[in-house]
Amino acid sequence: MKAKIRILDMFSGRYTVLINEEDAKEAKLHPDDLVKIEAGKKAVYGSVALSNLVGKGEVGISRDVLDLHNFSEGETVSVIPAGTPESVRYIKKKMHGEKLRKVEIEAIVRDIVDRKLRDIEISSFVTALEINGLDMDEIAALTIAMAETGDMLDIDRKPIMDVHSIGGVPGNKTNILVVPIVAAAGLTIPKTSSRAITSAAGTADVVEVFADVSFSLDEIKRIVEKVGACLVWGGALNLAPADDITIKAERALSIDPTGLMLASIMSKKYAMGSQYVLIDIPTGKGVKVETVEEARSLARDFIELGKRLGQYVEVAITYGGQPIGHTVGPALEAREALSALMTGKGPGSLIEKATGLAGILLEMGGVAPAGTGKKMAKEILESGKAWEKMKEIIEAQGGDPNIKPEEIPIGDKTYTFTAATSGYVTAIDNRAITAIARAAGAPEDKGAGIELYVKVGEKVKEGDPLFTIHAEHEARLDQAIVLARRTEPIRIEGMVLQRIGNI
Amino acid sequence: MKAKIRILDMFSGRYTVLINEEDAKEAKLHPDDLVKIEAGKKAVYGSVALSNLVGKGEVGISRDVLDLHNFSEGETVSVIPAGTPESVRYIKKKMHGEKLRKVEIEAIVRDIVDRKLRDIEISSFVTALEINGLDMDEIAALTIAMAETGDMLDIDRKPIMDVHSIGGVPGNKTNILVVPIVAAAGLTIPKTSSRAITSAAGTADVVEVFADVSFSLDEIKRIVEKVGACLVWGGALNLAPADDITIKAERALSIDPTGLMLASIMSKKYAMGSQYVLIDIPTGKGVKVETVEEARSLARDFIELGKRLGQYVEVAITYGGQPIGHTVGPALEAREALSALMTGKGPGSLIEKATGLAGILLEMGGVAPAGTGKKMAKEILESGKAWEKMKEIIEAQGGDPNIKPEEIPIGDKTYTFTAATSGYVTAIDNRAITAIARAAGAPEDKGAGIELYVKVGEKVKEGDPLFTIHAEHEARLDQAIVLARRTEPIRIEGMVLQRIGNI
Repeated sequence: MKAKIRILDMFSGRYTVLINEEDAKEAKLHPDDLVKIEAGKKAVYGSVALSNLVGKGEVGISRDVLDLHNFSEGETVSVIPAGTPESVRYIKKKMHGEKLRKVEIEAIVRDIVDRKLRDIEISSFVTALEINGLDMDEIAALTIAMAETGDMLDIDRKPIMDVHSIGGVPGNKTNILVVPIVAAAGLTIPKTSSRAITSAAGTADVVEVFADVSFSLDEIKRIVEKVGACLVWGGALNLAPADDITIKAERALSIDPTGLMLASIMSKKYAMGSQYVLIDIPTGKGVKVETVEEARSLARDFIELGKRLGQYVEVAITYGGQPIGHTVGPALEAREALSALMTGKGPGSLIEKATGLAGILLEMGGVAPAGTGKKMAKEILESGKAWEKMKEIIEAQGGDPNIKPEEIPIGDKTYTFTAATSGYVTAIDNRAITAIARAAGAPEDKGAGIELYVKVGEKVKEGDPLFTIHAEHEARLDQAIVLARRTEPIRIEGMVLQRIGNI
Repeated sequence: MKAKIRILDMFSGRYTVLINEEDAKEAKLHPDDLVKIEAGKKAVYGSVALSNLVGKGEVGISRDVLDLHNFSEGETVSVIPAGTPESVRYIKKKMHGEKLRKVEIEAIVRDIVDRKLRDIEISSFVTALEINGLDMDEIAALTIAMAETGDMLDIDRKPIMDVHSIGGVPGNKTNILVVPIVAAAGLTIPKTSSRAITSAAGTADVVEVFADVSFSLDEIKRIVEKVGACLVWGGALNLAPADDITIKAERALSIDPTGLMLASIMSKKYAMGSQYVLIDIPTGKGVKVETVEEARSLARDFIELGKRLGQYVEVAITYGGQPIGHTVGPALEAREALSALMTGKGPGSLIEKATGLAGILLEMGGVAPAGTGKKMAKEILESGKAWEKMKEIIEAQGGDPNIKPEEIPIGDKTYTFTAATSGYVTAIDNRAITAIARAAGAPEDKGAGIELYVKVGEKVKEGDPLFTIHAEHEARLDQAIVLARRTEPIRIEGMVLQRIGNI
């Protein structure tokens, strides 16, 4: 049927297509049917809802559609019932344990991006991958298909460096130091990051405290060609859009099939044109990769996938058994990262990790002889060159280069936990720290988070402060305190862990 | 947050919850988030859409919610963000190949019915079942959970008989004869049927031509207590509602995991209080179960599952290699079924199958000695007693008991295909027959369908009529003709199947 577009004031998280009940009856359309909306060369797929909020001869589209597709009020379009997409056959093939061919994977990814596949089909695909896995041929095909169905950056500089940390360790502001160190050495590093999904602060959330992070690909090109680096939010770009869609199903099911994780990370690096990629795999209790064996196996996969993509990949397995540095939460982490860049000094866990990773990149990029990268990285940091570069990045991204870290506002509703006993700190629970910071309001409340006064191995005396919770709202502070009491995130040797009375 | 209900004129195929953008921002709600809507003891879960179609302090719900839940305009409710449902853990367990415990299956089914699980989670569950399967303990738990989370019929008669045909064979109006034969012998048989999903006519679509099929459970109780039988649409009832929800994912993926199929069928029988159940498994090319080995294995599963449910189950493996009788499509099938009941005569495939199945039920129900059921069934049919009972059923279901089969209107746009060559009919393609009847408008257009003049094994001469397509609209007739030309559903021995020219 032909119909005139009406743009509906609604964000539904899917492409909703409202059709008048009479029109739907004539066209034999039912709620949740898949239809194609077509006008000239433009075409999108959406899910039918029946409603007399639109008149006969009208078709309502939810605003979700407009993010990527340009339809205007009153425009005439064809509404065509769509059958089962061909790619469902390939999803079934994977269910039945068969290997998918390159063209089959491309068809699935194309149909995901075109919204021909919806929650049901995507979830089935993700579940089939969790159960039956993908081999390296399939992962490489998936990675390239994901990148090529989105926008890609083309920067006229060589080499292009990149760094990515697998998530899970709280307070990991490391890359905010790595990027300016590497760029200060003359290398190009267009770094995109994500916002927090399950953590208390993604790198993009932290940078956003002192600079803009949402830019178009053209703007990023200009920034990077000017200052050699950026620290932006990948989510504002149309990089590997299939990944943004499949991640919804992965999150709802709390699964993360390895093949999909590799494709997700590497498709974005591929789309950014990165040639030398360093992958940081924090390993330890309470992070995504708990054992070194797992980390090694994953490292081999990253390196092998890189080869298929024409990228040179190295992997750093790092210690992720407790938070990095002393802060968790956007504003607190921004303070700590900027202060380390400004003074060249900071918590050992942050400085050692940042200069370690930056050193590898300096060697990979050919500006430091083998074995001297870390030393050079430290010099760049301590000399203030990294801070100078960071100020350029901040300015290019619309922030104030004269920012003073200690003036960044943090949550003024605070509560400090103290040691109930004397002894050594034996463990800090990553998951509990993240949960408490989130309960306090992070990452939405930029000032919310946790300041840690001790790290594993340090000696404390009864009554010493262990950590302070910061919040912007009393109610959130209270929630965080309750959670902290229940989870006791910092364990001290000799502490009574459980007390059981007479039974 | 507290809000006032606004009922939105929208059927979206899901429970949509519209929230004002400002309210959503305050409550940190995002599109497609899961929320609980609560008022006193009432509670439903739905998916958030942001919209200023509702004001601040209002919450819009789509009409889908009202089918099963009673909310009124202006009613004050609480809107509470809902986290990941506990049952997602059990779905993951099944993904990882583990056996689910009874309570875990119950939690999944409960969450499906409560709409706590949505397309993503349900599709993942269905996919995991397709890959990893269910054992008989799991299937029994699933069946009972599905039945007990819906309404159940409680009829004060014994024994309660039931019959169910696994789908796939076109023209299968058999149970329209079986039910009155069995009831005429004094047994109780409250038969629920489905509408066509992928076929050209479900039993409910056919019966609807001459009687109402949508009744409440109370009305069914009254009908069955009066006349001993019914022929109603199961979909109008809240029987095993989890099945109606999971079937959507199965259909989109065109999968039908065995355990889920067993639970789907038997949960509805269990909910109807059936004690003696006959399962008809049509077997042959182009139906669901293609081989006798498959049918036997499925039969054993049905019988074993019946034991776990306290039901006595028998299975009839029947011939499903071509359509039953001579008609396909609601009105055409209604004519054929009623005429057979009225006259006691009809196509051999229909009469033999119907009296065969009815005979088994008469023996199961203890009214016919072993080995004599079919003879008794034939007598009941030929004596006119089955027709008398059918007239009672029609009257009880609001139809005209004096209906004349030949006066039932059928599609008057027709086209007849004739034999292009002389010879024996070697095959009739079930899938093609169904597709042509659907192209002609069945099941929505009651008068659309196919009349067959020949069956497999019959001899035809060139020019003899093979089948007539009936449609209500010229355009649909044309579509059906094109499809029939392309698929050639009736194959005659000696017919040129392909002609290939010089290459």
